[in-house]
Amino acid sequence: MTHLQTISEYKCFDGQLGFYSHTSATCKGEMRFAVYQPPQAAHKPVPVLYFLSGLTCTEENFMVKAGAQRYAAEYGLMLVATDTSPRNTGIVGEDDAWDFGTGAGFYVDATAEPWRSHYQMYSYIVQELPAIIAANFPIQADKQGIFGHSMGGHGALVCAIRNPQQYKSVSAFAPIVAPMSCPWGQKAFSGYLGNNQDSWRAYDASELIKQLGYHSPILIDQGTADKFLTEQLKPELFEQACASVNQPLNLRYQAGYDHSYYFIASFIEDHIRHHAIALN
Amino acid sequence: MTHLQTISEYKCFDGQLGFYSHTSATCKGEMRFAVYQPPQAAHKPVPVLYFLSGLTCTEENFMVKAGAQRYAAEYGLMLVATDTSPRNTGIVGEDDAWDFGTGAGFYVDATAEPWRSHYQMYSYIVQELPAIIAANFPIQADKQGIFGHSMGGHGALVCAIRNPQQYKSVSAFAPIVAPMSCPWGQKAFSGYLGNNQDSWRAYDASELIKQLGYHSPILIDQGTADKFLTEQLKPELFEQACASVNQPLNLRYQAGYDHSYYFIASFIEDHIRHHAIALN
Repeated sequence: MTHLQTISEYKCFDGQLGFYSHTSATCKGEMRFAVYQPPQAAHKPVPVLYFLSGLTCTEENFMVKAGAQRYAAEYGLMLVATDTSPRNTGIVGEDDAWDFGTGAGFYVDATAEPWRSHYQMYSYIVQELPAIIAANFPIQADKQGIFGHSMGGHGALVCAIRNPQQYKSVSAFAPIVAPMSCPWGQKAFSGYLGNNQDSWRAYDASELIKQLGYHSPILIDQGTADKFLTEQLKPELFEQACASVNQPLNLRYQAGYDHSYYFIASFIEDHIRHHAIALN
Repeated sequence: MTHLQTISEYKCFDGQLGFYSHTSATCKGEMRFAVYQPPQAAHKPVPVLYFLSGLTCTEENFMVKAGAQRYAAEYGLMLVATDTSPRNTGIVGEDDAWDFGTGAGFYVDATAEPWRSHYQMYSYIVQELPAIIAANFPIQADKQGIFGHSMGGHGALVCAIRNPQQYKSVSAFAPIVAPMSCPWGQKAFSGYLGNNQDSWRAYDASELIKQLGYHSPILIDQGTADKFLTEQLKPELFEQACASVNQPLNLRYQAGYDHSYYFIASFIEDHIRHHAIALN
C-alpha cells in the first residue's frame, strides 16, 4: 500500500479535512491532495467526489474557498481535491509560465519531451489516485463522481466522458470545453502532446462527447461576467456538440458572475446535490 | 463624504462583495475593508454586521474562508470585514513581529509612542468606519452587530460592551477574553498603552463585563483542540466574570476543533443567525 504522509488535519463540519502527500509512481515524484471525510465516513463507506482545480491552483484552493464541506457533510460525500501538476520535477522551464508546466498540468498524459517523464496527470487522476483513496479512506469505490473548475472543468469532463463506468456523474464550473479551439488548450496540447492534432482529440470534451456521449445529464455553470468566457471557455461549442448527439446538458449562464471562487461558492450546493443524487 | 477607492468587486450569492480603500483620518493613512451586500440591499437598507479578524489577517481572510456570505444573503445582513491594523505607516519596527504592529493592532487606541500616531484601531472601528459605511452603503445605522475571531473576538467583545447602544449583538470565535492575563495581550498593551495597567482595563473584556454588563446574551464558540486555548484564550476567565454579574453567556466548547477558519466555517451559520435574530 502507498505510504501517505499527513501534512495537516482539521476538524470541519463534524468531519475531517486532511492534506496528504505521497510518492507517485505515475508522476515519478511527490504529489499532494486533500480529502474531506464527512461525518458519515466514521461509520460506513461513503461515495467519493473528485474536484479538479484550475490554473495555478494547488490542492488547497478548493478546500479553503469553495464552501463545499458544508454540503459534503450534509449529503455524506467524501471530497478529494488534487494538485494541478507535478512540482519540482527538475524539468527545465517548468516554472516559466503560469499557464503551462507547474500548476498547469491540464490533466493529460504528456507524450512530448521533456514533459512525458513526470506530467502524467490523466493517468494519475483516473488510475493511481483512486486506488490510493480506496486503499486509505472508507469509500464506496463503485460510487465516484468528478467535477472541476476552468482547466479542472476540462479535466473533469474528459475523465468522465472517457470513463463513464468509473464516474457516475460529472459537472463543471466555467470549464475549458474545447481546448483544441482556445489559446490555453492549444499552448498546453502543443507542449505536452506535440503538434499532431489527432492526438489532441482524446483530451477535448467537445470532440469526445460527439464520439462517446455520456450516460447522464451534465451540469455546467458559467458566469456571464467571466473575463475568459469568449476567448478561452466557449461553452457554446460544447453545447453544440451535445446537441448534435442529443447528450443531455444543463448549461446555466449565471448573470454577473466572474471566474473566481466567489462564483464557485455561490453554486457549490447545486453541484454537490447533482452528484449526491447520482451517487446515493 | 469620504472618497472610497474600489479595489475589486465580485458577485457572490446574488449579492455583491467589494474590497475598498480610503484615507483614514483616525489612523492617518490608507485603510482597507471588505463589504458584502446581500441581495436584499439592492432594494432597501439592511442591518450591518462587523467582523474583526485575528492576528496577521487582512480584510480578505474572512470573506475568502468563512463561508459567511451564504448566510448573510439568507438573513439579509450586510457584512463588513476590516483590516487588523494600519500598514506602511513608516513607524520603525512595525513589521518586526507577527503579534505586534502590522496585522496586530489589537483594536485599541494607542497612547504610547511611537504607535499613537497611527494605531487608533478602536476609534476607527467604533467611529470612523461605521460613519463611512453609513455614508456609502444602504444600511440601517441603528441595527449594527459585531463579532470576531481570536484578537478580533477580543475586539468585538470590547467594542460591544463599551458601546451597547451601538451594537445590538455580539459573538466571538475563540476570542482573547482576558488580554491582561495572557502573553499576547500583555505584549500588545505594554507596547500600545504603556505600563500603567489601569489604562489596560478599558480593553479587557473580562474586566469590562464586570463593570458594565451587556444587554443581551453573548455567544462564544471555542474549539477544544485549539493550541492557544490554555495560554492565550482562557475562556474560563470570561465565564467567571460573566457569572459574577449574572451576564448571560452561551460559551460552547466544540470538541476537536482548532483555531483555524475551518472551525469558523463550521459554526458561522449559528453566529449569523444569533445576530440576525437580534437585528431583524
